[in-house]
Amino acid sequence: MHEFDTVIRGGTVVTASDTVRADVGIRDGRIVAVAESLTGGAKVIDASGLLVMPGGIDSHVHLAQPAFGGPAMADDFESGTRSAIAGGNTTVLPFALQPRGASLRQSVMDYHKEAEGKCYCDYGFHLIISDPSPSVLGQELPALVGDGYTSFKVFMTYDDLVLNDRQLLEVFDCARGCGALVMVHCEGYDAIRFMTQKLEAAGKTAPYYHGVSRPQSVEREATHRAISHAELTDVPIMVVHVSGREPMEQIRWAQQKGLKVYGETCPQYVALTAEDMKGLNMDESGGKYVCSPPPRDHASWDAIWEGIRTGVFQTFSSDHCAFFYAGEMGKLNPKARTSFRWVPNGIPGVETRLQILFSKGVAEGRITLNEFVALTSTNHAKMYGLYPKKGSIAPGFDADIVLWDPNRKETIRQELMHHGADYTPYEGMAVTGWPVMTLLRGKVMVEDGRIVGEAGDGGFLKRELSPYAIPAGGA
Amino acid sequence: MHEFDTVIRGGTVVTASDTVRADVGIRDGRIVAVAESLTGGAKVIDASGLLVMPGGIDSHVHLAQPAFGGPAMADDFESGTRSAIAGGNTTVLPFALQPRGASLRQSVMDYHKEAEGKCYCDYGFHLIISDPSPSVLGQELPALVGDGYTSFKVFMTYDDLVLNDRQLLEVFDCARGCGALVMVHCEGYDAIRFMTQKLEAAGKTAPYYHGVSRPQSVEREATHRAISHAELTDVPIMVVHVSGREPMEQIRWAQQKGLKVYGETCPQYVALTAEDMKGLNMDESGGKYVCSPPPRDHASWDAIWEGIRTGVFQTFSSDHCAFFYAGEMGKLNPKARTSFRWVPNGIPGVETRLQILFSKGVAEGRITLNEFVALTSTNHAKMYGLYPKKGSIAPGFDADIVLWDPNRKETIRQELMHHGADYTPYEGMAVTGWPVMTLLRGKVMVEDGRIVGEAGDGGFLKRELSPYAIPAGGA
Amino acid sequence: MHEFDTVIRGGTVVTASDTVRADVGIRDGRIVAVAESLTGGAKVIDASGLLVMPGGIDSHVHLAQPAFGGPAMADDFESGTRSAIAGGNTTVLPFALQPRGASLRQSVMDYHKEAEGKCYCDYGFHLIISDPSPSVLGQELPALVGDGYTSFKVFMTYDDLVLNDRQLLEVFDCARGCGALVMVHCEGYDAIRFMTQKLEAAGKTAPYYHGVSRPQSVEREATHRAISHAELTDVPIMVVHVSGREPMEQIRWAQQKGLKVYGETCPQYVALTAEDMKGLNMDESGGKYVCSPPPRDHASWDAIWEGIRTGVFQTFSSDHCAFFYAGEMGKLNPKARTSFRWVPNGIPGVETRLQILFSKGVAEGRITLNEFVALTSTNHAKMYGLYPKKGSIAPGFDADIVLWDPNRKETIRQELMHHGADYTPYEGMAVTGWPVMTLLRGKVMVEDGRIVGEAGDGGFLKRELSPYAIPAGGA
Amino acid sequence: MHEFDTVIRGGTVVTASDTVRADVGIRDGRIVAVAESLTGGAKVIDASGLLVMPGGIDSHVHLAQPAFGGPAMADDFESGTRSAIAGGNTTVLPFALQPRGASLRQSVMDYHKEAEGKCYCDYGFHLIISDPSPSVLGQELPALVGDGYTSFKVFMTYDDLVLNDRQLLEVFDCARGCGALVMVHCEGYDAIRFMTQKLEAAGKTAPYYHGVSRPQSVEREATHRAISHAELTDVPIMVVHVSGREPMEQIRWAQQKGLKVYGETCPQYVALTAEDMKGLNMDESGGKYVCSPPPRDHASWDAIWEGIRTGVFQTFSSDHCAFFYAGEMGKLNPKARTSFRWVPNGIPGVETRLQILFSKGVAEGRITLNEFVALTSTNHAKMYGLYPKKGSIAPGFDADIVLWDPNRKETIRQELMHHGADYTPYEGMAVTGWPVMTLLRGKVMVEDGRIVGEAGDGGFLKRELSPYAIPAGGA
Repeated sequence: MHEFDTVIRGGTVVTASDTVRADVGIRDGRIVAVAESLTGGAKVIDASGLLVMPGGIDSHVHLAQPAFGGPAMADDFESGTRSAIAGGNTTVLPFALQPRGASLRQSVMDYHKEAEGKCYCDYGFHLIISDPSPSVLGQELPALVGDGYTSFKVFMTYDDLVLNDRQLLEVFDCARGCGALVMVHCEGYDAIRFMTQKLEAAGKTAPYYHGVSRPQSVEREATHRAISHAELTDVPIMVVHVSGREPMEQIRWAQQKGLKVYGETCPQYVALTAEDMKGLNMDESGGKYVCSPPPRDHASWDAIWEGIRTGVFQTFSSDHCAFFYAGEMGKLNPKARTSFRWVPNGIPGVETRLQILFSKGVAEGRITLNEFVALTSTNHAKMYGLYPKKGSIAPGFDADIVLWDPNRKETIRQELMHHGADYTPYEGMAVTGWPVMTLLRGKVMVEDGRIVGEAGDGGFLKRELSPYAIPAGGA
Repeated sequence: MHEFDTVIRGGTVVTASDTVRADVGIRDGRIVAVAESLTGGAKVIDASGLLVMPGGIDSHVHLAQPAFGGPAMADDFESGTRSAIAGGNTTVLPFALQPRGASLRQSVMDYHKEAEGKCYCDYGFHLIISDPSPSVLGQELPALVGDGYTSFKVFMTYDDLVLNDRQLLEVFDCARGCGALVMVHCEGYDAIRFMTQKLEAAGKTAPYYHGVSRPQSVEREATHRAISHAELTDVPIMVVHVSGREPMEQIRWAQQKGLKVYGETCPQYVALTAEDMKGLNMDESGGKYVCSPPPRDHASWDAIWEGIRTGVFQTFSSDHCAFFYAGEMGKLNPKARTSFRWVPNGIPGVETRLQILFSKGVAEGRITLNEFVALTSTNHAKMYGLYPKKGSIAPGFDADIVLWDPNRKETIRQELMHHGADYTPYEGMAVTGWPVMTLLRGKVMVEDGRIVGEAGDGGFLKRELSPYAIPAGGA
Repeated sequence: MHEFDTVIRGGTVVTASDTVRADVGIRDGRIVAVAESLTGGAKVIDASGLLVMPGGIDSHVHLAQPAFGGPAMADDFESGTRSAIAGGNTTVLPFALQPRGASLRQSVMDYHKEAEGKCYCDYGFHLIISDPSPSVLGQELPALVGDGYTSFKVFMTYDDLVLNDRQLLEVFDCARGCGALVMVHCEGYDAIRFMTQKLEAAGKTAPYYHGVSRPQSVEREATHRAISHAELTDVPIMVVHVSGREPMEQIRWAQQKGLKVYGETCPQYVALTAEDMKGLNMDESGGKYVCSPPPRDHASWDAIWEGIRTGVFQTFSSDHCAFFYAGEMGKLNPKARTSFRWVPNGIPGVETRLQILFSKGVAEGRITLNEFVALTSTNHAKMYGLYPKKGSIAPGFDADIVLWDPNRKETIRQELMHHGADYTPYEGMAVTGWPVMTLLRGKVMVEDGRIVGEAGDGGFLKRELSPYAIPAGGA
Repeated sequence: MHEFDTVIRGGTVVTASDTVRADVGIRDGRIVAVAESLTGGAKVIDASGLLVMPGGIDSHVHLAQPAFGGPAMADDFESGTRSAIAGGNTTVLPFALQPRGASLRQSVMDYHKEAEGKCYCDYGFHLIISDPSPSVLGQELPALVGDGYTSFKVFMTYDDLVLNDRQLLEVFDCARGCGALVMVHCEGYDAIRFMTQKLEAAGKTAPYYHGVSRPQSVEREATHRAISHAELTDVPIMVVHVSGREPMEQIRWAQQKGLKVYGETCPQYVALTAEDMKGLNMDESGGKYVCSPPPRDHASWDAIWEGIRTGVFQTFSSDHCAFFYAGEMGKLNPKARTSFRWVPNGIPGVETRLQILFSKGVAEGRITLNEFVALTSTNHAKMYGLYPKKGSIAPGFDADIVLWDPNRKETIRQELMHHGADYTPYEGMAVTGWPVMTLLRGKVMVEDGRIVGEAGDGGFLKRELSPYAIPAGGA
């Protein structure tokens, strides 16, 4: 009998702090040994010349969410997790969205139904609270937190999701009571609506004006507001998908003040700009890049890197939220062609997150290998209650591993993608570093771009309370 | 025939920039000469040993506003302007408040009716917009601005006045269009309500908890939000009654960014603290000090002085808003005794503003005499379209003059006051510097504490557009 | 007999706070009346359509200083003050420089000899302390301060002038003791020398490299250092000729901290850039723009305007320090052609200071007329103990007046200049606003560009202690 | 034959990123396996209930440095490293100090002679450059860097060590050229001397005045200056032993600007205050706490924790520099009794560093276990070229391990110490967390407070270039 089910030999193991030449021994889906030299594996994988890193954890992914009268999402749980694992991820955290008026528990059950048996990687759910009724805050939410849905997201914009300040305060207060971590989408609803109507009235309806309708000051204001509400209720918050200097500096200011405010950023904020939304001469193809907050400019890229470098941001997520660009007529859907207001907000990205950060971060010398692992895996696990089950290469962790070729040069193209969408916004982008094999709990799921695992191999993750959700004033 | 109706001889004339030994010649209610030595006055006033300063302009005064179900204000236009002129002021700018649903024009006419023939000093009106309906923003407001009501105030809190963000944006946008200057009361409504209910539920209802229900972070958040809306609409704003470091730093940050954001502060923020609201062992007498934003602490005093010293604040106003402390039973009104929530927000102060700033500012060495004049008169005139009619001692200006004894030591006591209220929150405060004579357009109105002018001597001021209201992006 | 020697009629009088239509009556060289309408002048000057402003006070001017082995200055007291008055100035404050080893008193006497009978405008002396020996600090300096030389300058760079930190501390401490105001040239000597040698070693000797040898960080460091020494000794300091954001922000930080740190800037920092020093294709003509600190870039212009706008800077001076560009051969002097190190540091500017600030400041909408007067005259008088003799238009002030045409468009050209230098660095610059008449103590000195006064009309000014020199900790 | 020389069983392995239940297998002095369960150890150590952490690396320790006319150090290499290992450290980096005029190479050889065969833990040397002559900078220093002395320290104060700005710039420039990391002691020499003479002249000579002679502004100024020099020469620097908010904010500002400036702090800045230097009623016993920079106040503790929490500081070192408090007469040495100026600067601390940080940091909830390991071990190894040989628990690392009881409560007392000094400044301080066993390259050196290893077990460490020393502008 073999001591290990699998041994990964000859690679360089990278964790959030260390980089060592070591073999990794796997048994029963978990890592059981990291050693100079391991023998006795039923299966031996040669990792010479490769980095052996914890599989990516993408803690910000939208899958199979309702259309709200717009187009359906391009990714369900099957295509979305296929794309994730192809991109080197072994865990995703999509959202279970509560439609207004609906029971939170029922919403969660609905998402479970969508996900069950379809996933290529492990998954948990953040809740999205769109209707913080007394029964939601008083019973459902605390109960769900107790059941392992230990984080939820609230929105400061979007017709169907926006909470007002009073609701935000009550939701924050509830989170404090039950130890959940709150993620906040910080953009000001009223300001965006005001700008949108101004722009539409002026005939400025091309996708490009999506960005004009929600400038950085709108994101900064909402960020400041969310931080202030968090300060008042003494509850930690995670400000997600930060796009540039102005909101970044608000988070930094809060952190220096001693508030527990965390930050997330995404590939689009270091790889796309508002110019992309111009498409070809202000045409509709700019719609391929519409997401919220919108991509900004090169100075914002620098600000985001500054935030990464100085520790303002803990996580680097995709905010994957894929829509079909081409409807039946091969173009942006008809309604979306009437105004940027109807262009669905969101772009695909779960499959290209690691490559973009590796390429621009590690290969271009902005971050270390260990920071890469922290930003893409370890910090996500710690932030969202998955640690020490997920997020590192060490005895006891699930054998969620990506073998990474740090020198492979590749060009991102739609043909390489495994998502449901019909385009990638990073088409043509040259990157250095690419995943060559991904293991989920010891099972090889992807081999050199080919999916070799099964839909259904991925399972649901009941999560612990986040240690980051402990209030400054104590639990 | 005399060359001058009145000559003020032998005094030291102080303007916002200069301090000179000079005589002042007055004719037809206006200053016509400032000279080393003037003869030929029908009336000669000896100002030896005194400072000859422009009469105070208090650009933030509440008179005769409706009760909204609470107690009536203690000051109507007669008592309020009597108190003002007794305190060395020659112009006040109270508010014409639009109740929800009412016509703005009608509201203004109502206030005119209240004021006409009753005032001891000149007056103009800021509008208060509580209901920015399309007709208000589309017709009434622009028309009224054209008629000389060139500034208005909006509230981010108070049940009967609060505007939501969308309304704020539309009002700001309208101000931009018609060149009006917007004053903003920056405190967050939802946060205050949230805190109030928490406190009440915990049985914390004493006046002291008024301050706890609206901490600096709540004022800071609203300040940041107002600034952001102003940035989005490219319109200058005046943040009124700033209470401490956190909102002050927001204004400073905006100013350094190049935004046209102005600041006002008040005596209560350098002379009272939250401790005062404790009254006698947390009793109801703390209600005498309840105003909004609430007084903070000594560190906040320092922050306010820092803001004054470094130019963050342009005006020092009273925010006079007087209520009777004692009802029929000689105590806080019955409803107000049930919770701080019902204690009317506001304190008297129009009569003590100059003395407090002179004493703590000039006499204690924090500001110069010229800065005193700027903060209490000149800047108000310039900010609100009264310049060069009001606000300085120079040929052409209205002969609105206060003769000030810089060395007189006095203790503020209710017996000295001319207001309608039954107390002063500054009772017992020792000050240095006191007004000994006040002239309104050349007429002596107050002589050593005695009112010698008539109700009705004061007239309405139609104001010009504020030069401060010109957007950064151009008119 | 006429009541006034001169009456200036029909103009608009501008002070640091007020702008009024008024006549100005002059007797015995002083202003005795400002009034709506004055008659009775022996001489009447028509100022219709003109601004009547206090004559410029240029508190930073170098005249007739020793060559230290380099070329002589282009301006002695005669040509320098002729240029000053032609530019609308009525007072200059040049420096009496103590060569190392020399007696301070003797140095002052030498400068008096140079100046006496030659000046077209009034003048005082700042001292330059290059050798703070015990006798200088113990006796000479306090005695000279008592004699009306109430300010002095120290240098943190230049071979013949630099003081080390210990000397700076002792000089600051001495200033504190005798109430003098210290001006500091903040650039780090060692850093400049280090850079200079690096550049020369690399053959980078063109005038352009002057700027490269002393980047903003070098000025910022010295500014921080001077501020720290001032903090340690509790003495106010004036940081002169600030060139850009980095040093500006140090001063602002100090001011916000409550330190008495003042700031001066100059025309070259809003009108020239490092590019000018490139001359024609990196040739020697770049030497015409060499001064220290060097002109920076357009972003620095913005930073300087931000500092002006937010009150960081109190004075706007020329730092006039003129050298001949063309030696005998019509080119930069031979030694200066070998390396930027030998290009004399300084440019002419006393005659163009007002026009540049008026044009870029007032005419382009960055500052008000009153701020213009404050920055060019009033604040200089207050800062350096000349107030209330100089610096405003009000009874009692010397009748130092410039009549200014705010609409006159002119192009700065060497032919228009009255200085000794053979070029102006602002050649070809179009400006709006020009002085059309200048009076010194009531006497017309310049009329439409023609000098009509005499060398010798200007007299020495014994100055009072600066009220700005009072330490935070008290006198 | 056993697979492992030693197996540590049942403990919780802590690295800078991970905390896992695992066994550690050691062979030939190195860690070869980390696994869920290991058998086959010749020796088995039971670590149940204990943390298994990388041995402390104290990168700032002074041993056996020359007296410079003052008292000798209390610790030579034997007592110093004994104290270090007793405190849970396995590596120290003391200094090889170049006396002025001496050869750097010779100095290094002298220190080797002192250290050889005497050390209980491994050691390397930072160089101290006191005399950066052309031969030192041109030949000796680059050669020594090549030989593994890859970091050095420079001083901005102390009579015998201070470098002037020019020297600092040249040394920084040299560091850039040879890839060495520069540590800087940032306090301003001239300012301290100036203050010292003032204080002595005023008879203020007690140890307490040591702190008064070098306030935070003096440390801040030097920090700013060092940063500026580093910016000019584009070379990374490490600012050591930062004591409070003012210098901390300078480092943070530099980091945000993108400069490679690192920070170190020490136990004395979160555990001692200036009050301690008062001794017993301002007596000489305050001398026990004299070090430089001096301990500040409780607000400074908060600032230091803020710096730790937000990533401003990378390393937490002891700056161990022990002197005998009691000379022959049981009191501060005679010269030191005449003035604080002669009290030797430095306190013992190598043995208590880990306990203080663990207790105040981990046990009191300010930092995580992983941050503790990073701050005390991993970051030191990475910063100073010892990684991946030292600084973590993973295959390939030296088996330098401390077994730590996180729950043990202890009171720091001189009786527990193994250093040469006759006191500990932390006498009586209650701590939680204590080292119970220390292994050096697999050999047990300390067991429950008893030294069981030998002097001489520790060896010299030739270090690699620091990856942190790579200039922003590239190598």
